[in-house]
Amino acid sequence: MSNNVKVGIIMGSKSDLNIMDDAAKVLQELGVQYELTVVSAHRTPERMFDYAKQAADRGLKVIIAGAGGAAHLPGMVASITSVPVVGVPVKSSNSIDGWDSVLSILQMPNGIPVATVALNAAKNAGILAAQILSVADDALAQRLIAFKNDLKSKVEESAEGLKSEGYACSF
Amino acid sequence: MSNNVKVGIIMGSKSDLNIMDDAAKVLQELGVQYELTVVSAHRTPERMFDYAKQAADRGLKVIIAGAGGAAHLPGMVASITSVPVVGVPVKSSNSIDGWDSVLSILQMPNGIPVATVALNAAKNAGILAAQILSVADDALAQRLIAFKNDLKSKVEESAEGLKSEGYACSF
Amino acid sequence: MSNNVKVGIIMGSKSDLNIMDDAAKVLQELGVQYELTVVSAHRTPERMFDYAKQAADRGLKVIIAGAGGAAHLPGMVASITSVPVVGVPVKSSNSIDGWDSVLSILQMPNGIPVATVALNAAKNAGILAAQILSVADDALAQRLIAFKNDLKSKVEESAEGLKSEGYACSF
Amino acid sequence: MSNNVKVGIIMGSKSDLNIMDDAAKVLQELGVQYELTVVSAHRTPERMFDYAKQAADRGLKVIIAGAGGAAHLPGMVASITSVPVVGVPVKSSNSIDGWDSVLSILQMPNGIPVATVALNAAKNAGILAAQILSVADDALAQRLIAFKNDLKSKVEESAEGLKSEGYACSF
Amino acid sequence: MSNNVKVGIIMGSKSDLNIMDDAAKVLQELGVQYELTVVSAHRTPERMFDYAKQAADRGLKVIIAGAGGAAHLPGMVASITSVPVVGVPVKSSNSIDGWDSVLSILQMPNGIPVATVALNAAKNAGILAAQILSVADDALAQRLIAFKNDLKSKVEESAEGLKSEGYACSF
Amino acid sequence: MSNNVKVGIIMGSKSDLNIMDDAAKVLQELGVQYELTVVSAHRTPERMFDYAKQAADRGLKVIIAGAGGAAHLPGMVASITSVPVVGVPVKSSNSIDGWDSVLSILQMPNGIPVATVALNAAKNAGILAAQILSVADDALAQRLIAFKNDLKSKVEESAEGLKSEGYACSF
Amino acid sequence: MSNNVKVGIIMGSKSDLNIMDDAAKVLQELGVQYELTVVSAHRTPERMFDYAKQAADRGLKVIIAGAGGAAHLPGMVASITSVPVVGVPVKSSNSIDGWDSVLSILQMPNGIPVATVALNAAKNAGILAAQILSVADDALAQRLIAFKNDLKSKVEESAEGLKSEGYACSF
Amino acid sequence: MSNNVKVGIIMGSKSDLNIMDDAAKVLQELGVQYELTVVSAHRTPERMFDYAKQAADRGLKVIIAGAGGAAHLPGMVASITSVPVVGVPVKSSNSIDGWDSVLSILQMPNGIPVATVALNAAKNAGILAAQILSVADDALAQRLIAFKNDLKSKVEESAEGLKSEGYACSF
Repeated sequence: MSNNVKVGIIMGSKSDLNIMDDAAKVLQELGVQYELTVVSAHRTPERMFDYAKQAADRGLKVIIAGAGGAAHLPGMVASITSVPVVGVPVKSSNSIDGWDSVLSILQMPNGIPVATVALNAAKNAGILAAQILSVADDALAQRLIAFKNDLKSKVEESAEGLKSEGYACSF
Repeated sequence: MSNNVKVGIIMGSKSDLNIMDDAAKVLQELGVQYELTVVSAHRTPERMFDYAKQAADRGLKVIIAGAGGAAHLPGMVASITSVPVVGVPVKSSNSIDGWDSVLSILQMPNGIPVATVALNAAKNAGILAAQILSVADDALAQRLIAFKNDLKSKVEESAEGLKSEGYACSF
Repeated sequence: MSNNVKVGIIMGSKSDLNIMDDAAKVLQELGVQYELTVVSAHRTPERMFDYAKQAADRGLKVIIAGAGGAAHLPGMVASITSVPVVGVPVKSSNSIDGWDSVLSILQMPNGIPVATVALNAAKNAGILAAQILSVADDALAQRLIAFKNDLKSKVEESAEGLKSEGYACSF
Repeated sequence: MSNNVKVGIIMGSKSDLNIMDDAAKVLQELGVQYELTVVSAHRTPERMFDYAKQAADRGLKVIIAGAGGAAHLPGMVASITSVPVVGVPVKSSNSIDGWDSVLSILQMPNGIPVATVALNAAKNAGILAAQILSVADDALAQRLIAFKNDLKSKVEESAEGLKSEGYACSF
Repeated sequence: MSNNVKVGIIMGSKSDLNIMDDAAKVLQELGVQYELTVVSAHRTPERMFDYAKQAADRGLKVIIAGAGGAAHLPGMVASITSVPVVGVPVKSSNSIDGWDSVLSILQMPNGIPVATVALNAAKNAGILAAQILSVADDALAQRLIAFKNDLKSKVEESAEGLKSEGYACSF
Repeated sequence: MSNNVKVGIIMGSKSDLNIMDDAAKVLQELGVQYELTVVSAHRTPERMFDYAKQAADRGLKVIIAGAGGAAHLPGMVASITSVPVVGVPVKSSNSIDGWDSVLSILQMPNGIPVATVALNAAKNAGILAAQILSVADDALAQRLIAFKNDLKSKVEESAEGLKSEGYACSF
Repeated sequence: MSNNVKVGIIMGSKSDLNIMDDAAKVLQELGVQYELTVVSAHRTPERMFDYAKQAADRGLKVIIAGAGGAAHLPGMVASITSVPVVGVPVKSSNSIDGWDSVLSILQMPNGIPVATVALNAAKNAGILAAQILSVADDALAQRLIAFKNDLKSKVEESAEGLKSEGYACSF
Repeated sequence: MSNNVKVGIIMGSKSDLNIMDDAAKVLQELGVQYELTVVSAHRTPERMFDYAKQAADRGLKVIIAGAGGAAHLPGMVASITSVPVVGVPVKSSNSIDGWDSVLSILQMPNGIPVATVALNAAKNAGILAAQILSVADDALAQRLIAFKNDLKSKVEESAEGLKSEGYACSF
């Protein structure tokens, strides 16, 4: 692994990739190197243990973990490592509208936090990971500010667009 | 450990004992030997791994696991051992009315079942463990039938009691 | 019935078959003989009573019962027999997103447990039934361990697959 | 039993009596004879069957059934008899805030209705039973109208009371 | 109106007809005459008042009222007349998965019951209306018993059907 | 009634007064005259109709209506009058944690809005009523701005208070 | 801006336009001038501040704000201006069935009300805005009454339509 | 402010202090300097803006924000600054069992993440803030590992304690 890989993206099942890939994309956009693989808490518990145990030594500074249903991956990884874990509740096919995914990631007992983002919000997980890294990386902090400004510009453009569609507004 | 100990009762925190003790009591009543200890998936992940890994070899035939909030203990133990795991969602102080406890135990992905009982229903977990053991223990099966008959008698007595309190019923 | 049939799979309506068939398939895969039929608690209460009453004498060691909406079949069967009952909440067309199915199976009063699995998780019901039988069947216990290993291998393969799709990971 | 007893009030546990007694009281107030007893679907399934089977022959015209948690009593009685069943979801100690009680009584499949009233609303169950009987009892229908008028008067009185407490209103 | 019309079916919007028509069909099947129209509590409050006020005098013995979202029609009709009201929560397009429809019909205050059936269960509303009428109509009571037997037969047939599809069951 | 009374506060039951009185108090504080009485949609439907029908002619410009459980009062009043109605969901004793109160007030069909505020937030209902009146009352608009500034000052004071309690903050 | 523009319609994202446009349409129908634009609390916080700060001076009398998920726009605008704010919870693609949208708009703390309407009910938001303006505009009040009468007529027509479709009703 | 203050703890109301103080305590225990104050998004929006705008320049590396009900503080602060924000949903007196607090903090739109922890879990917010800082502070990372080991020891001690209370376990 390149010693620049600071974010590990893991997911409970390859079927979560269509959601979790958003984390990879935004990290790429923000110039943060990442790795991405499948680690199942329930089907490969040893692999999950090893991944979490080795994370710090392998140079990972943030782990993004996504899972659905009774989603134990983010919390279990957080129980094993002190590297901060960002949890992505995935609305998978076996989930009850996402409530199980959200609650089983969010409601961690005191002592073992998981930084939970919104349902399916892997993009936000990537941004949050970058924000965490930016604590020690001023250039990245600047890129995050630019990213935020870009979001602003897009809203302002869409507001202008509405005018050209005939919606009046003098603001 | 006596080689007659076939049920292991574990809980995520000693604060769950007031609930989980009901499993111990009913197993005692049904003449089933058990052990009971604290194993936290989040605070002692290695202990949890070891407990689950050794369970079959230590002679355990059923594991009863109780936890609250983002309750990962039952599911994680079930991911490591093939011994059937009975999960007790505990309405602990950090739980959102028990919904998190229920969903994070019940909603396991296909491949790794947890036999979930009702919120706080440790007594039912004990009975279910006995039912599972009774598959290979006719005497226990008979005790379970007697236990069921006893439940019936108590209802019939309470129905009689209502009559003596003045509630008429010719049934 | 062959005296090897140890698992009875029942469902409240033939429309649940597309879900409940998963229990049959996994039992077949695990080499466990089963029977499968329709028993409705609400439309055929006597049939339900008879099925439950005769279960033990007919040699059944586990009953898997699936139902949706106000799902009374698993709990009522469990009230009549001491054979362990695995309940499958089915997200049927008349269900409110599965919440009614889950709660009316899971929330049994103390005295009468139902081993509840996740919404629509008939496959897990089959695996759990096999785990219960494995208490007295070492060969089956071995097949369950192999089944678990197979799940693990598939995850590891999908992790490898991600590498060939271009997702880097040195773990 | 007096052949005037037309309403049977049953409950799953004597612990539901503090709620279910409200049905008895309002029936008394409305001059409708009733019987009241404990019938548990889960602990006394045969007693439940017999009660439901004999209901019509014993002259019952309406059955009020209350239960909590996975509340199967109302629906199971309705599955056995064609006598209309009024279901009272009870927020019992083992209930998740009443949601399980409500859903497992209300969400009956097509073919087998239960006339469900609000959580803990045993008084309304009694009134509804009287309304059902009033279909063939004009005197009772008149008493129900008087009962309704009485409710109205009490509201009007409380509105007057507010004026005397200093809350102005010219209406 | 024929003086045999004893059941009034009303709904808050013509868009509820695809659901509420099931009540009409089952009443037809059971030989009970009904009327059916649109009465909106919110858009035609006077019409709703008049309908409820005149119901008893027009000979109606039961009113079936269906509505969705903030569903006030069943409860408001019940507030005006003593004729029993059966409420059908409709999962309409403006409803939050049916929860609003269910709660705003079911949770009536003491004094004013609505006999609530399951979400979208207009068929059950029709059956319940017939059960209520059968209190004073033995022939209808017999037809309801036959209806119940028919449900039973269909389940038994579907059980037989499974055998011919190759699902073994010796029960 | 003084012709200055522009806000009518009504509630479904006198037991809601402890909540609804907050609306009266804040209107008093803001110098807005109000009336307050009990009007039950379910127990006094005619009174409710009359109140709503006469509201505009009696000079009311806003109606604040509070109710709990299947809370129909705000929506029914809104169906009868074009005067804007502010709805207060009350967590009354017969409510399921307030969900029924919220949904049966909020989820009105298109055509008949109710301006819903938070559970038990009668104070906000009073403020909102004042904001509505301020559309045509500049002095009131100024008082509302002062009210808002006062809220701000209290927060700033509590922030200062924390410093004196020893919590450092250089902001 | 024309000094007749009294209603500002804002939304958190242009993707909410298909919902929020209903507010514009009904205001047009009621003869109320409006402006419409995109203002994102999260992506353009300064724009949101400026919009809210200038609202009163720009002559706005009511602001309609729609947003989905963690919907902060309505509440934040209400925190900055004393102009009444009507909140529209939008069931956007990132929402958990609308519950987040509803709760994060409705549950404002005392001091800062938002007049919340039903999920996706932008049409009702427009009507409510018109009702608020009608406090000082008798002609608009008359148009609202006509609008209400029109709703009534449509229901009556649909009731007639059912008769011609063969559904009998003598009411 | 000491230039060592890297964590800002803010809360929407001083009434949240009893919860939020747990964040302060654990940061103290972990040797991380913090500041703590009250910043209300709804009552002091400008103060909130200023706090967020100045955070980076004032040297803050992480902001912990707690709020209840329609909890906008964490999300709004995150919208203004790129400093990572940890959100603590508080079950305040005006909250519907915490659901509103959780959803209005967690369900942020893509672009603006909030690192959400469990309901009332301010202690976890403090730990998470320390984990974030440890990305650039090896000594702190070591203290976090020691903290984790301490949690483990306490569980192991409580397991030993159960033995001395008479609960047998050979593990």
